[in-house]
Amino acid sequence: MLYTPHLTTRKIMPEMQEFPMLSLSSRITPEHLFYIRNHFPYPIIDMRTWGLQINGLVNRPLYLRYHDLLQMHQVSIPVTLECAGEKRALFVPKTRGEQWELGASSHAVWTGVRLMDILKAACILPNAMEVTFEGMDKGVRTDMQGIFTYMRSLPIKEALNPDLLIALYMNGKPLPFRHGYPARLIVPGWYGMASVKWLQRITIIDQPFKGPFQAVDYVYVNTAKPVETIRLNSTIAQPSDQQVLAKGEHLLLGTAISGDSPVLFVEVSFDNGMTWQPASWLDPHESYSWRRWCLKWTATNSGTYDISVRATDAAGNVQPEIADWNEKGYGYNAIQKIRVYVD
Amino acid sequence: MLYTPHLTTRKIMPEMQEFPMLSLSSRITPEHLFYIRNHFPYPIIDMRTWGLQINGLVNRPLYLRYHDLLQMHQVSIPVTLECAGEKRALFVPKTRGEQWELGASSHAVWTGVRLMDILKAACILPNAMEVTFEGMDKGVRTDMQGIFTYMRSLPIKEALNPDLLIALYMNGKPLPFRHGYPARLIVPGWYGMASVKWLQRITIIDQPFKGPFQAVDYVYVNTAKPVETIRLNSTIAQPSDQQVLAKGEHLLLGTAISGDSPVLFVEVSFDNGMTWQPASWLDPHESYSWRRWCLKWTATNSGTYDISVRATDAAGNVQPEIADWNEKGYGYNAIQKIRVYVD
Repeated sequence: MLYTPHLTTRKIMPEMQEFPMLSLSSRITPEHLFYIRNHFPYPIIDMRTWGLQINGLVNRPLYLRYHDLLQMHQVSIPVTLECAGEKRALFVPKTRGEQWELGASSHAVWTGVRLMDILKAACILPNAMEVTFEGMDKGVRTDMQGIFTYMRSLPIKEALNPDLLIALYMNGKPLPFRHGYPARLIVPGWYGMASVKWLQRITIIDQPFKGPFQAVDYVYVNTAKPVETIRLNSTIAQPSDQQVLAKGEHLLLGTAISGDSPVLFVEVSFDNGMTWQPASWLDPHESYSWRRWCLKWTATNSGTYDISVRATDAAGNVQPEIADWNEKGYGYNAIQKIRVYVD
Repeated sequence: MLYTPHLTTRKIMPEMQEFPMLSLSSRITPEHLFYIRNHFPYPIIDMRTWGLQINGLVNRPLYLRYHDLLQMHQVSIPVTLECAGEKRALFVPKTRGEQWELGASSHAVWTGVRLMDILKAACILPNAMEVTFEGMDKGVRTDMQGIFTYMRSLPIKEALNPDLLIALYMNGKPLPFRHGYPARLIVPGWYGMASVKWLQRITIIDQPFKGPFQAVDYVYVNTAKPVETIRLNSTIAQPSDQQVLAKGEHLLLGTAISGDSPVLFVEVSFDNGMTWQPASWLDPHESYSWRRWCLKWTATNSGTYDISVRATDAAGNVQPEIADWNEKGYGYNAIQKIRVYVD
């Protein structure tokens, strides 16, 4: 029990908990420290009756019991999930919503059935345009009347990406209830809102889905574009901002990720971006995983140090100096800066 | 396990954990959510040999085993502890050190032996000036060479205040190791640095104690004054800053405290301090306890609301508009302001 890092509780109902980035000792996040961003109270699930429906524009509607899913071909893929509101607290001016700091992101190995296999088994009709995913979690919203279930859609092309999973396991163990048991959609490379928990229904439709978690939330209000793939980003996990250090060698440690193009390298600056030095990778490249970087730094002189980190992707993109401010505070990915003091 | 608030982990070694203020459902903080601010790694304690020494300028040096302390007259006092760095993250510009937000403060009922009874039993000599308290926790500092134990002093007059305890119990249960077992000094009304954990020695001296946790840390650098009693302060526990609310009735809930003069009333403003309305007390007045306040607020119109809270004490003091900035970030007690959105 000593020296236990905890989730940072941002909200109790619905539950919102942040991964403590300072405890980034392994690439994989232990399940009990994996961030949680719910939209509604936890659903009540009766496994005697639970099954996953696949319906809409299909030739063969399916109803897959938990047992059926367990019997299907299983695939394991490491995928980092990241809330679209990650680092929202860093926006200036602040924006409405949970004030996520650095840890609205976590990494796990997900195991389950390829969504593609299920969609093929259902025989999608040619006029299919989108696929909707409905969770069992439901409740009220502040901005409209009625009871809503949490529901999202994907374009049919994205839904047929062979790396999308209906996950039944997380880090080799049955998916914890708090993370979507019995079945959770995993959409690699997309912000976490796409990875619908407590799945109960998949529907193939011939028009754009306009549910409130698609058309009202998870929209960059400044450009009216939907929030989709994870923007190029990097994070300093240690030291933390305003930390006091002794003279000597310190390890700077953090993560980098992009949902679009592989991150090629991470650089660190000690002079507010005048000059940059490359960090080293602690992890190999994997398509959908954050990759930890580190840099040994010897602090020989007392003083105040400003440290910045930036990632560059294979397409030549670099993180922006200033975040793309938007009213609902999504997709913060500006270069992170911290200040530390050497005594 | 569902909807579990956690401590917010600010640092792993030494351990620093913050109480989640959003879970202020009772006046008393459950032990597992009580904030932790350690200066060193946890000490190793062998209860077969542990005893509390009382020495220095006394006629009768004492050595009190745990069993001896348990046999002495026990007193229970509710005392709120608050880290001197509480709300440090709110200073502008930021200051070095742990970026505590709202919850570097917690409340418990402490039970143990009056320090006064022990000092009397030891027969203090007339030239006594200060009393030092030494914990068993020790380690290195960033700013000077050597190994230090955590050690603090009090003026003799303060040490003889009958409300100071050598606490053996917290909330009616044996003091948890993380909170100072087997014995912790409790100094009501003072910031938490005075309430030395894992006590091993009490020494009466005839000169001012100049240890680094007395003369280097816990000093307001701007005035060169020592950090002592808890400044008049109030906190909004719910709603949280940037929260989105539905139209209708909401409960504003928070705490108020002062280590100097009783808090008379708490007021809330919805117009940046132009007008103020009184909050109601949820708890009775107790000398050393935070007191929870609440205010029912009916949000009838959509919009953005700025909410401020301020406390006034019996001496007529009001919290300042702007915090008393000091280099090490102690004693933040400016009027807290949050912004919420009604949809």
